[in-house]
Amino acid sequence: MNGKPKLYPISPLAPAAFPRMPEIAGVTLAAGACGIAKSVRSDVLLVELAVGTTVAGTFTRSLAASAPVKWSKRAVKGGQARGLVVNAGNANTYTGPAGKEAAERTAQAVADQFSCRPSRVFVASTGVIGQPLSYEKIIGALPGLKRQLSPMPWDTAAKAIMTTDTFPKGATRQARIGGVPVTINGIAKGSGMIAPNMATMLAFAFTDAAIPAKVLQSLMSGAVDKSFNCITVDSDTSTSDTALLFATGAAKHPAVKRANDPVLDDFRAKLDDLMTDLAHQIVRDGEGASKFVAITVSGAESDKAARRIGLSIANSPLVKTAIAGADANWGRIIMAVGKAGEKAAIDKLLISIGGHPVTRGGGPVPGYDEAPVASHMKGQEVEISVDVAVGSGAATVWTCDLTHGYIDINADYRS
Amino acid sequence: MNGKPKLYPISPLAPAAFPRMPEIAGVTLAAGACGIAKSVRSDVLLVELAVGTTVAGTFTRSLAASAPVKWSKRAVKGGQARGLVVNAGNANTYTGPAGKEAAERTAQAVADQFSCRPSRVFVASTGVIGQPLSYEKIIGALPGLKRQLSPMPWDTAAKAIMTTDTFPKGATRQARIGGVPVTINGIAKGSGMIAPNMATMLAFAFTDAAIPAKVLQSLMSGAVDKSFNCITVDSDTSTSDTALLFATGAAKHPAVKRANDPVLDDFRAKLDDLMTDLAHQIVRDGEGASKFVAITVSGAESDKAARRIGLSIANSPLVKTAIAGADANWGRIIMAVGKAGEKAAIDKLLISIGGHPVTRGGGPVPGYDEAPVASHMKGQEVEISVDVAVGSGAATVWTCDLTHGYIDINADYRS
Repeated sequence: MNGKPKLYPISPLAPAAFPRMPEIAGVTLAAGACGIAKSVRSDVLLVELAVGTTVAGTFTRSLAASAPVKWSKRAVKGGQARGLVVNAGNANTYTGPAGKEAAERTAQAVADQFSCRPSRVFVASTGVIGQPLSYEKIIGALPGLKRQLSPMPWDTAAKAIMTTDTFPKGATRQARIGGVPVTINGIAKGSGMIAPNMATMLAFAFTDAAIPAKVLQSLMSGAVDKSFNCITVDSDTSTSDTALLFATGAAKHPAVKRANDPVLDDFRAKLDDLMTDLAHQIVRDGEGASKFVAITVSGAESDKAARRIGLSIANSPLVKTAIAGADANWGRIIMAVGKAGEKAAIDKLLISIGGHPVTRGGGPVPGYDEAPVASHMKGQEVEISVDVAVGSGAATVWTCDLTHGYIDINADYRS
Repeated sequence: MNGKPKLYPISPLAPAAFPRMPEIAGVTLAAGACGIAKSVRSDVLLVELAVGTTVAGTFTRSLAASAPVKWSKRAVKGGQARGLVVNAGNANTYTGPAGKEAAERTAQAVADQFSCRPSRVFVASTGVIGQPLSYEKIIGALPGLKRQLSPMPWDTAAKAIMTTDTFPKGATRQARIGGVPVTINGIAKGSGMIAPNMATMLAFAFTDAAIPAKVLQSLMSGAVDKSFNCITVDSDTSTSDTALLFATGAAKHPAVKRANDPVLDDFRAKLDDLMTDLAHQIVRDGEGASKFVAITVSGAESDKAARRIGLSIANSPLVKTAIAGADANWGRIIMAVGKAGEKAAIDKLLISIGGHPVTRGGGPVPGYDEAPVASHMKGQEVEISVDVAVGSGAATVWTCDLTHGYIDINADYRS
């Protein structure tokens, strides 16, 4: 499969600037071009993590998980990390035994550089599916990258993991653990897609906090559940989705042993917030996106049910095209609630758009005026809330609209 | 919600002509314009069924089912039918108690015309959601329609139930029960959609066979499962989907008592075939469709698992846009298999496109030549087959591609 990379303009929903991200004690990074991506661009990222760094991760649930996902999923069980290597341009997915070998050899080569066990090296790849990964190019670049490792090039790192993203994605937060300040930095890629590539979400977060791997995993799973698991661009699940959180332990705060220790409350809140920020940036770079849409569902049987209803609305092509057309077509929202497979009191639905009540008691609100709703829908940020009146479960999910841009990006014949 | 009806050109995938459909003893039809649809067009269909007609039906699983669906769902339990009335232009959905009353009054008025119980009258409505149905217009048209009832106007009937369909849909089959010939006719609408209307599938089939309601329901459920439940245009489920099968009993064949009686084998096969024909016509009128796609999944854990994998492929926006672009992007097919939630041996997937093997043993087939595959994908009929190598379950599903036309139709701002 040979694709010519095409350039699409920066998403109109992109943040104004890449954030100023501080260094994290115990983390150094370097990016470069090793020739896997078609265009002359930075396509490999190397990260060194201090001895003693703990790690947690979540991965795609796809049966067709890539070789790097399989490798990293096993490595994360060890709870320890010394290195991370990410390449763009080739997903090393559906590459059979050769793909497994490519992931192993890459991890081994990084381990050689950092004098550690290969099982402490994490690997991620995104890009073309079904083509052998020229891992020799990555290995060849490692010595040079190692010499360039430094604590600050976060924007360079965020750019090196991009495939068809139209802007680099980063976020930073400060938290306190027992009064001691710690930092969390995160970079991500995702939702840009171009034939023959596949949309993939990668997120890597780093902190100087000292948190045991088991506790870190609990925090990470909670954060991913509220952030990346609540976004959708087109309902398709990548074979390479990977989110990793590394904690170097350089900060000198009181020891933490349990995830529910109140001393972690602020860290957890900031981690959730950082992950949500990165997740939003991915949606804002959704293919062809012209509107950022937040959908809040309340009154559901459980939080999980609320999220499922929210995703049913967020994934409905009819809802997404109506939003693209700035059309306050609430009938389509009702349709999506009706098909979600979760309990809902249809005759009691309270739907609001942009804070304006739309339906109540089984019909439009008395004296419904579409003008303010239509005006809200013409903006770049659309808010929909739906109360399904059967319980107290709630969730917010985020998506973008479905536009001609999506078709342009994904239906182009590979020349 | 006020929508201007717009005209879209006839789908390039439409059959060459409406079939020549014979009369069915015991069925007479009449269609007319009662003023519910915005444009001056036929928008109401009345059907009279002979005394003794049995009925079977299947309906949308949406929680937000329309008032007519609720009415007909209850009526079908009686197993007897004397009348059917269908209107286009207003779905009588999300219309609260007034909507319930509208369905009841309409059924009562038809019952008055045919001197039968209202519970033997079936009602179906499609069109705008959330607006009161002016059922008085339907009731006012009934006496005139009754005078025009005749056995042959199948094309007129198929046209009267259209909303945004670009062509009327009909099919006819001859079957034998115990050596005696019987006829099955069917009309359907669906998959055309335009703001603020919602895509809806209606299908009505009629036969002169004499089949008890319980047996008829078993045949009907089987046929729907293999036809309408195997098609998808955009994964959205309408609030009004209705399929009904009426058997007038005019044919003088041996009595049938059980659905598994071999005397019904030919009838079942022809009914399945007719329903599949109508289902295909709906896909061929899918919004913006430029290609008709058949996806066959084999080697699954069960037939149900095979259908779920097939629908995961058929509903994937990435697969559908790739097909629109005539792009043999098999990586996206693997992605869709991987996320389907059913067992599959990913490393043993056999994918063929247009009969040309594409993948085998965890990678592209040795010496894979994309040229014949690309050539097949440029046609209007695309065939994809996937063997997932874990069992013997199989299913075929049908869909269309996702094109700019879909966005045009559904994202137009209502003027």
